[in-house]
Amino acid sequence: MKEQTKISNAVIRRMPKYRRYLRDLQKKGVDKISSGEFSRLIGYTASQIRQDFNNFGGFGQQGYGYNVSVLYDEINTILGLDKEYEMVIVGAGNLGQAVANYNYYYKSGFVVTGIFEKNPKLIGIKINDIEIMDIEYMDAYIKRNNIDIGIICTPKENAQSVADALSSAGIRGIWNFAPIDLTAREGVMIENIHLSDSLQYLAYHISKEK
Amino acid sequence: MKEQTKISNAVIRRMPKYRRYLRDLQKKGVDKISSGEFSRLIGYTASQIRQDFNNFGGFGQQGYGYNVSVLYDEINTILGLDKEYEMVIVGAGNLGQAVANYNYYYKSGFVVTGIFEKNPKLIGIKINDIEIMDIEYMDAYIKRNNIDIGIICTPKENAQSVADALSSAGIRGIWNFAPIDLTAREGVMIENIHLSDSLQYLAYHISKEK
Repeated sequence: MKEQTKISNAVIRRMPKYRRYLRDLQKKGVDKISSGEFSRLIGYTASQIRQDFNNFGGFGQQGYGYNVSVLYDEINTILGLDKEYEMVIVGAGNLGQAVANYNYYYKSGFVVTGIFEKNPKLIGIKINDIEIMDIEYMDAYIKRNNIDIGIICTPKENAQSVADALSSAGIRGIWNFAPIDLTAREGVMIENIHLSDSLQYLAYHISKEK
Repeated sequence: MKEQTKISNAVIRRMPKYRRYLRDLQKKGVDKISSGEFSRLIGYTASQIRQDFNNFGGFGQQGYGYNVSVLYDEINTILGLDKEYEMVIVGAGNLGQAVANYNYYYKSGFVVTGIFEKNPKLIGIKINDIEIMDIEYMDAYIKRNNIDIGIICTPKENAQSVADALSSAGIRGIWNFAPIDLTAREGVMIENIHLSDSLQYLAYHISKEK
């Protein structure tokens, strides 16, 4: 799939949503769907939907629509979900433990294999069956096990240096939960999750009546 | 602040980010910042920054720039962070427990006061000092305590009916962690958090080399 390199990030951001709706349709036993029906369901226009999939060569047939299972499988391939990703968590405080316990994503090819921490009181404890290890061994562990993704759950003061250490060790993706925007090294993709930003956005919308 | 009703959601989405950067500047002892300096720091253009704040009446002075503390306080007021919000979590499984343990936001005016669950094995247990209660009492609890925000951590099959029950009880904001897009009732704001979507976006960007 050489075309993927040209696809805009906005299109890629919509793919996981398409995937969720297609999975639900599959579970309901729906075999095919037109772009019009899909539009009413997902809230994008029919032409947006057609355009998005045309980026990857189409998948739809005029007068028939989309085959739900075929499209679902194609999106999995596009997103790279036909592979398995190994992840480590850095920081085993409240946030790191929460992420370790949030095992929804384990089902879909993302596996946390280790947690790293510098606080000696936490090292050796298991969270959700994953051992907390001394951060001193992180670099060697990542290299030996070809870890794909590092999840940063440290205080924000340490987050950039942890991101740099992860990048040096060969990590290619960083999922950052520290409330700071991190700078990526070349070849490393950083996805910042700012839960507080989202909560503050919610506060704005309800504060006017309070 | 009557003007707030006209402000676009895109502007409001940027406010928590401005707030984070201003807080960091404050901590570093920086008193004032020009829109140009702010632009280099935060990655928005200087004209974007000026436009965003002009929505609320400006705050900057020509030739001086922005007073960091004044701007920080103004953003808090704009976002409604000068008030405190009481929240309940619905669903005390792995996800609900993770969110209950993620206490970052407690510091900034968002307080979880109760967790509701239908599984009798979990009712009565405390998570992070918050009691898990029978979901049967949720409606009365929300009404009696004027709860502002409901956090949905149930399986996706139950999420919409929980959202409806929260809305009927008088909740005005819903923070949804179930992997489904919920439909809001009038007067209720729903913010969907799709962590898996974000992880899949990351997978796309690193899968090409895998």
